[in-house]
Amino acid sequence: MAYFLYLGIFSLIFIIFLAFRILEQSSGNEKTTQLSEIIQKGAKSFLFQEYKVFFPVIFILAVFFWIIIGYKTSVALLIGATFSVLAGYFGMSIATRANARTTWAATKGLGEALKISFSGGAVMGLTVVTLGILGLAITYYVTKSVELISYYSLGASFVALFARVGGGIYTKAADVGADIVGKTEANLPEDDPRNPAVIADNVGDNVGDVAGMGADLYESFVGSIFSAIVLGSIFFGEKGFKSVVFVVIFGLISSIIGIIYTLGKAVRSNDPAKTLRIGTIFSGVLTLVLTLLYSLYVNWLNIFFVVFFGVFVGLLIGLITEWYTSGKKVQKLAKTGMMGPANVIISGTALGMESTFAITLLITIAVIFAYKLLGLFGVALAGVGMLSTLGISLSVDAYGPIADNAGGIAQMAGLEPKVREITDSLDAVGNTTAAMGKGFAIGSAALTALALFANFSNLSNITSVELSNPYLFLGALIGGMLPFFFSALTMHAVGDAADDMVREIRRQIKEIPGILTGKQSPDYQKCIQIATKGALKRMILPAILAVLSPVLIYVSFGAVGVGGLLIGATVSGVMLAIFMANSGGAWDNAKKFVEEGNFGGKGSFTHKATVVGDTVGDPYKDTSGPSINILIKLMAITSIVLMTIVRGL
Amino acid sequence: MAYFLYLGIFSLIFIIFLAFRILEQSSGNEKTTQLSEIIQKGAKSFLFQEYKVFFPVIFILAVFFWIIIGYKTSVALLIGATFSVLAGYFGMSIATRANARTTWAATKGLGEALKISFSGGAVMGLTVVTLGILGLAITYYVTKSVELISYYSLGASFVALFARVGGGIYTKAADVGADIVGKTEANLPEDDPRNPAVIADNVGDNVGDVAGMGADLYESFVGSIFSAIVLGSIFFGEKGFKSVVFVVIFGLISSIIGIIYTLGKAVRSNDPAKTLRIGTIFSGVLTLVLTLLYSLYVNWLNIFFVVFFGVFVGLLIGLITEWYTSGKKVQKLAKTGMMGPANVIISGTALGMESTFAITLLITIAVIFAYKLLGLFGVALAGVGMLSTLGISLSVDAYGPIADNAGGIAQMAGLEPKVREITDSLDAVGNTTAAMGKGFAIGSAALTALALFANFSNLSNITSVELSNPYLFLGALIGGMLPFFFSALTMHAVGDAADDMVREIRRQIKEIPGILTGKQSPDYQKCIQIATKGALKRMILPAILAVLSPVLIYVSFGAVGVGGLLIGATVSGVMLAIFMANSGGAWDNAKKFVEEGNFGGKGSFTHKATVVGDTVGDPYKDTSGPSINILIKLMAITSIVLMTIVRGL
Repeated sequence: MAYFLYLGIFSLIFIIFLAFRILEQSSGNEKTTQLSEIIQKGAKSFLFQEYKVFFPVIFILAVFFWIIIGYKTSVALLIGATFSVLAGYFGMSIATRANARTTWAATKGLGEALKISFSGGAVMGLTVVTLGILGLAITYYVTKSVELISYYSLGASFVALFARVGGGIYTKAADVGADIVGKTEANLPEDDPRNPAVIADNVGDNVGDVAGMGADLYESFVGSIFSAIVLGSIFFGEKGFKSVVFVVIFGLISSIIGIIYTLGKAVRSNDPAKTLRIGTIFSGVLTLVLTLLYSLYVNWLNIFFVVFFGVFVGLLIGLITEWYTSGKKVQKLAKTGMMGPANVIISGTALGMESTFAITLLITIAVIFAYKLLGLFGVALAGVGMLSTLGISLSVDAYGPIADNAGGIAQMAGLEPKVREITDSLDAVGNTTAAMGKGFAIGSAALTALALFANFSNLSNITSVELSNPYLFLGALIGGMLPFFFSALTMHAVGDAADDMVREIRRQIKEIPGILTGKQSPDYQKCIQIATKGALKRMILPAILAVLSPVLIYVSFGAVGVGGLLIGATVSGVMLAIFMANSGGAWDNAKKFVEEGNFGGKGSFTHKATVVGDTVGDPYKDTSGPSINILIKLMAITSIVLMTIVRGL
Repeated sequence: MAYFLYLGIFSLIFIIFLAFRILEQSSGNEKTTQLSEIIQKGAKSFLFQEYKVFFPVIFILAVFFWIIIGYKTSVALLIGATFSVLAGYFGMSIATRANARTTWAATKGLGEALKISFSGGAVMGLTVVTLGILGLAITYYVTKSVELISYYSLGASFVALFARVGGGIYTKAADVGADIVGKTEANLPEDDPRNPAVIADNVGDNVGDVAGMGADLYESFVGSIFSAIVLGSIFFGEKGFKSVVFVVIFGLISSIIGIIYTLGKAVRSNDPAKTLRIGTIFSGVLTLVLTLLYSLYVNWLNIFFVVFFGVFVGLLIGLITEWYTSGKKVQKLAKTGMMGPANVIISGTALGMESTFAITLLITIAVIFAYKLLGLFGVALAGVGMLSTLGISLSVDAYGPIADNAGGIAQMAGLEPKVREITDSLDAVGNTTAAMGKGFAIGSAALTALALFANFSNLSNITSVELSNPYLFLGALIGGMLPFFFSALTMHAVGDAADDMVREIRRQIKEIPGILTGKQSPDYQKCIQIATKGALKRMILPAILAVLSPVLIYVSFGAVGVGGLLIGATVSGVMLAIFMANSGGAWDNAKKFVEEGNFGGKGSFTHKATVVGDTVGDPYKDTSGPSINILIKLMAITSIVLMTIVRGL
């Protein structure tokens, strides 16, 4: 674990260096600077509102654990929560400062803009990984127990819940609200500064896709390492423990080198997608090479094979996601728009459901091999392998919303079209990486949930369930229902919060007559506040559901029931998440494909039909789908903590 | 079992009496008679095409079983298949003859029309139950083994697969095809005889909602009785066995009395919904009273309680389904149409997903109580209880498409509007009963699958799975994926088959110039053929998937994996089926609510938005959703048969 501390501190220095490099760039003229500042303020205000709800909850929980178990668990919980919050806060601060700087760099050229936006993403990506391992190490030194790291993991899960679910509701409420009144009723173009919700929409990109995604993957990263360390220690002692630590270290080092390499190439790049892809693959290969050398050194080759499967499956899931959300599949989907919106919905739904097949088989095969080679430890280690290069893959992910924001600022500041062209080309790449990132997030959530389940089943000490024990099946039935119910709640939440938003935008347009003529500035802050309140209020019920269900099932059905619950929730949750993410991604790109001039182009009947698909896909892919990742991981870690409490640890 | 024979023969006589009463009615004027005959021919032609594919498959399977196990299993398989086919064929023959007779009776009044259409439904309902128990009894006498009844059940499952999946694809391909060209392109009203696909559409109602639904519930009925008999014999010997037989007998007797009662009330009824509801409740109560008396007589009161839970939950599931697909929920859904089709889709999706919550809890509670009272036998017996009054509940179900057909014939034959009004009011009731019937079908499929699973787990003899055995989880993961993939396949199938249909309708309208002016009759038969071929061709892949997956998983993961597979498939399948059925039903009724003049009425923006919802809901509720019922039951019964083979029975 000492390695985690050393490398973490080194990595922090690198991150600070990167951050300064970004901040020393010009944020442009008065207009772009001002816009960026409004977005910064909006994002911060969302985070602080969130913390106001979040920290009291976590403190009560910490006190509760202190009383019933001891102070160490409370400390672990608080470290997990605080470090994840810090990662999200810092990453978002830089991301919301990198946006205008990317816009301004775009006036100089594509390469410069790519460099700034990717640097911003890299700060987020590396911060998550770095604080993740630093927190782990500190927790370990404080608690002196691998098992109590579960509380650290639980803390991270809580942050993920708030950031992902709250952020997901926020971003879509703002987006849908802005679209309904702005585009449809008032006929304003996208990103028009006269739209009162336009800043809230830009804030939403950061809140959902930077902070939300970051907290989600922080949770996966920490959860899979925790599981692997515990299972590795149990089955292989020191040797197992150490190998996990080294794989994580190799991944972080490779990510840093990959990021430096990518930044070096960025300036002269004229194909951003290729540059980012080469950097990511480079880091993956480097991690594998280092792991291979290590395996040879300690003479334990299975480590290499399992990590290889993890990395490989992560890559393949990305490719399958890309296959279903771009190219031929999307063109075919766009074509169904010629028959009307209903056909777009049916075909897109079928497409998303179909995509569960290949991804499930892949995960299954990886897990079998990992299990055959290293038992339960292998299952967890494959998850660690998949997430080992999170440093760079999250950087690529977080780069997307920065580029998106940069485009919005260019539009709102009225910069020349050439700038917008450059930011648009960066944004287009960001859309693809976002779709792949979602696939990766689901895949890693599935493997993490499996690893946590392995941990739970080991802890629950249930060695002989009768298959005919109905509590297993009934637990699974309830578990399988929860992702559906959870999705219904989050979808309703988006709808209701968007309604609030629509009312506010209408009110402003009516009461401030100068808005539409551009003479008066709308009250952006008010819209941000409404979206924030709406999101936080409506995430309470889903949150309670996620945390209490394992407890209730344990009380009613016992540990076997909880085992069933986790199986059911993971199984139906993973399928639902894949379906929603890929249907949503495909609808988004089908609309874009038509907008490029195909099947009649913008404004045609087909375009309108695909817009319906895109609108349906928004809460699918950005709210409900991603929230399910959190649900299944949080339920798993809650069950583990529950077992440690029950066993009186 | 002797009781099954006696009562079955008595019931057959009653069915024949009912059938003659229908046939002696006038089928009306030349026009209505002719239309009815075309529908009869179309329905028959679909069935015979289906048999041509089906029987070779079943014979090969029978020969296979003969060789590896013995002739008894083949005989059981063939009885199961043949009796289910006979039930479907006979029921559909009468239903397609009752349609025009209902139309003609409607010229005399509502009561007469209700009487004929419900008689038609009753023939279907009673035939399914009667042949179900007769087949069971004969199988038992031939094989002299309760366990070999699984092959009888497998035969019934195969018919259900072909009837439900093939029929589901057929009915929606015809419906969608007729709507796209007829309504949208050629501007013809619903049920216009100039639309070449109009007969295929009417045939589809019978193929999907009469034969398909009938085969689905035949399978549930037989599967739950089989499971209860086996588990009852194992855990309670003769006593357990007998109580199942008596509950089934009480249910059939009560159904017959309820049907007679309803027919008596029908003529003077001016509220068809109420008349049907009273009849159904009457039968349920009578069954419970008889069961209570029997329980007191044999001094085993738990039998009564478990059956009571089954009946009660069946009823409640129906009510919950009604709650989600009518009234306030639907009005709120219709209102979202004012914001556009995307909002209708999102809200309807959330509605369907939300509905999984209450239904899952209900099933869970019923199963727990049943298990606490009678162990695994209780779980199976609750399923039998729920299906005990299938005779009348399926009658109410099958009445719907007859009324729907009657309306179509009235329209096509150009009868006076008053007649159409009467048939429309019958049809409206049918829509509600159809939605409740779907809820009932899913609920019973879930309980049957659970009962079959209990049987499987008992048979597989797995008394000690480690929860950490990854094959359980991986089996569940693959099982959970299958309903999604299966739904994708059936949705694609509808889309592709509808495309064939659209091409054919366009061709006819183009090549036969007299069609649109009404001077030349379109080639109805050709459309029926196209839909039939399209449906049968596209059900092969889903069918193979359903049958082979347990075998493949057994070979790869062993019996524990198959257990996981069944858990995963049932869990995610039940949720998906509930979601699709209720979203679809709500969308359908939201459209109707707007058509009644709300939120702008027919032709308004809101109406168009709700039409999109209805169109999306069609394959959800009539193809993919119901097909999942079959998938989970067929996988369960295949697994059981597999176990008997493996154990070398």
